Amino acid sequence: MNSKKPNRRGFLKGGAALAGVAAGGAGLASGQTAGTPAKKLDELIAYGDRSRFVTSKRIPVAERHSPDEFGLTFHVLTPLQDSHGIITPSSLHYTATHRGAFVPDIDPKEHRLMIHGMVDRPLIFTMDELKRLPSVSRIHFIECLGNRARPTHKNVQETHGLTSCAEWTGVPLSLLLKEAGVQSAASWIVAEGAEEVKGNSSIPLAKAMDDCMVCYAQNGEPIRPQQGFPLRLMAPGFEGIYQIKYLRRIKVVDRFYMTYDDYGHINPDPKASALTHQIGPKSVITFPSGGHQLSGPGIYQISGLAWSGAGAIRSVEVSTDGGQSWKKAELQSPAYRMAHARFGLGWKWDGKECVLMSRCTDELGTVQPTRAEVAKFWNEPVDKVRVRGADNTVQPWRISSDGSVHNGMA
Amino acid sequence: MNSKKPNRRGFLKGGAALAGVAAGGAGLASGQTAGTPAKKLDELIAYGDRSRFVTSKRIPVAERHSPDEFGLTFHVLTPLQDSHGIITPSSLHYTATHRGAFVPDIDPKEHRLMIHGMVDRPLIFTMDELKRLPSVSRIHFIECLGNRARPTHKNVQETHGLTSCAEWTGVPLSLLLKEAGVQSAASWIVAEGAEEVKGNSSIPLAKAMDDCMVCYAQNGEPIRPQQGFPLRLMAPGFEGIYQIKYLRRIKVVDRFYMTYDDYGHINPDPKASALTHQIGPKSVITFPSGGHQLSGPGIYQISGLAWSGAGAIRSVEVSTDGGQSWKKAELQSPAYRMAHARFGLGWKWDGKECVLMSRCTDELGTVQPTRAEVAKFWNEPVDKVRVRGADNTVQPWRISSDGSVHNGMA
Repeated sequence: MNSKKPNRRGFLKGGAALAGVAAGGAGLASGQTAGTPAKKLDELIAYGDRSRFVTSKRIPVAERHSPDEFGLTFHVLTPLQDSHGIITPSSLHYTATHRGAFVPDIDPKEHRLMIHGMVDRPLIFTMDELKRLPSVSRIHFIECLGNRARPTHKNVQETHGLTSCAEWTGVPLSLLLKEAGVQSAASWIVAEGAEEVKGNSSIPLAKAMDDCMVCYAQNGEPIRPQQGFPLRLMAPGFEGIYQIKYLRRIKVVDRFYMTYDDYGHINPDPKASALTHQIGPKSVITFPSGGHQLSGPGIYQISGLAWSGAGAIRSVEVSTDGGQSWKKAELQSPAYRMAHARFGLGWKWDGKECVLMSRCTDELGTVQPTRAEVAKFWNEPVDKVRVRGADNTVQPWRISSDGSVHNGMA
Repeated sequence: MNSKKPNRRGFLKGGAALAGVAAGGAGLASGQTAGTPAKKLDELIAYGDRSRFVTSKRIPVAERHSPDEFGLTFHVLTPLQDSHGIITPSSLHYTATHRGAFVPDIDPKEHRLMIHGMVDRPLIFTMDELKRLPSVSRIHFIECLGNRARPTHKNVQETHGLTSCAEWTGVPLSLLLKEAGVQSAASWIVAEGAEEVKGNSSIPLAKAMDDCMVCYAQNGEPIRPQQGFPLRLMAPGFEGIYQIKYLRRIKVVDRFYMTYDDYGHINPDPKASALTHQIGPKSVITFPSGGHQLSGPGIYQISGLAWSGAGAIRSVEVSTDGGQSWKKAELQSPAYRMAHARFGLGWKWDGKECVLMSRCTDELGTVQPTRAEVAKFWNEPVDKVRVRGADNTVQPWRISSDGSVHNGMA
């Protein structure tokens, strides 16, 4: 520890507080350096950093959907195995990109949002103009449709790391649409981002008028570049691809528009399509989960996250015997609508091999299914079942008798 | 913009996802460099950063309470003028230190929490043991007693920057105390931190058993060093000095213990003392506030924060005529107990000089007072009134006819 005394004369200069701090505050840098090169003291005062003992990090994955170079999907996964509470730190929020790992470098002064199509008054907003309108702040999860556990995945970052949760602040989309004057024949919107691939998606007008937000802030500061700086559309509860990053255009239309982003969930019926967009209910145990090591038999706190695109989580159950019996877990955070909720359950491990699982029920009463239930529905073998749409099946974690924790799908 | 195509061969290597990302993901670094030196791409994948166009920062202040070098108070203020929603990013959370700008560099593996004094079973916990206990996650503000606006302050960072709000996760203190077995004659606790000055404070046992938390996480990751890594006591709604950083010891006692931290609020009566500890109700307009510049007459969204140590904010009113008339503002975030709440009100500025103010009412019905009301109570002139205890008086912002915004206390 650095117990260096502050520089007395530096602080006694009334008008030289900054200089005094720079001279006397050497101790502030202690414990603040997250890596190399060490951050300067003035940088750590301006914008703090985590402890050098905290090294949790995101991991990247790359996948190919088609044989050409445009078929690339590049994702960065949130380390849910290290998560606490329900807020994902912005630095650890997952990132999904399409057709290349491209993050636009947008000057917010140059950015514009256009609202046009079937409206009486097409509008173009600057960022300053948007910030002069009434805002709302809500905690919501985002989850990518690609958040699918596979038997080869080693830990919860790989099985479930394509979901994160943050406080989002922005203008209700309904306010902008009312200002533009939506025409009576309109029934859908198409939202488009400024990235190379455009990130455009068709969203039912009913959803747009209900709870969509045009967001400029995430966790109390401007949205991070990897999450859509300077503007992102939030469609709470819909799968991630509808939360359009780098939002620059919303076109009001009278039908579903097929776009590049619509692989996997094209449906000409608006109601069916809206339901297809919706994520969950889903839950996963984050501790203990794959890669964790229990120190021996004894009392542990099972902890995890639950969420639903249909609203709030009503209850979570945990099984410690591979699904033969279930106990009600405790909700340890408020259960906000379309947000992660933290659950926990005390558990005495006897040192024998066992399988842990969680399942949740949302405010509509929908229960998260097991993989076996989905397999039975589709009449497919459980180890080979192809989950259609979003995969919200129950995740098993197998505890070995040596305390090591493994993916229980294998 | 960087539209470089991803390196095809790099991504085609199935087992070389990381190498492929490093080769093809040059675009990810674009827009991610917050300053110099530029962060490496692999660092930005592991732990993201803000846009280079976002430069909001904390500012330091140093004050002297006594003539020796131990009388130093070193604070770092949150830039509330740039805030959105209610979560303060951990990098921008305010920091208050006493007797020198000292941040301990604690290895969490070595850290211990001892609970002793008037208990049947004195206990010592490691960090791992604490994390094996049931946890709760709550959004709470912290505010320093020193958060006092002065006429010389130029902006809301200087007048009110010693309050921030975050999601805190930890073990209910009541659980630890019950485990230790509090003896019937006990009535107070003394909590102590591991920093040089110890940061110890006496807290009524009733508060300790009600809603105090022994926290290890802030906004979803381990508490930052400047906010008390690895362990911090949260006493929701009490002034900042009771939220003991680097928590290492809790002694259960049968009386109020005077400590170094008790300047300003010593009271031998537990009830009176508990009320003295409590902050608010308080509110402040963050936009427009000192230093902001309105572009001309027109419609603006007045935005601000309100909080109370007594519970939830029930309502906020805004005046645009220096307190002659008040309009009800809209709560734009959920109003959690002992948390910041975001309020807003649309306002048409006619281009004439005026004074903006906000005042809030909490769930107990307590109304935030104006400075004039406090002066009248103490029978002192309004420009010289000494506010006893926490200063929760209404903050005026004066808009000049040129659109510049100034501290209205002057």
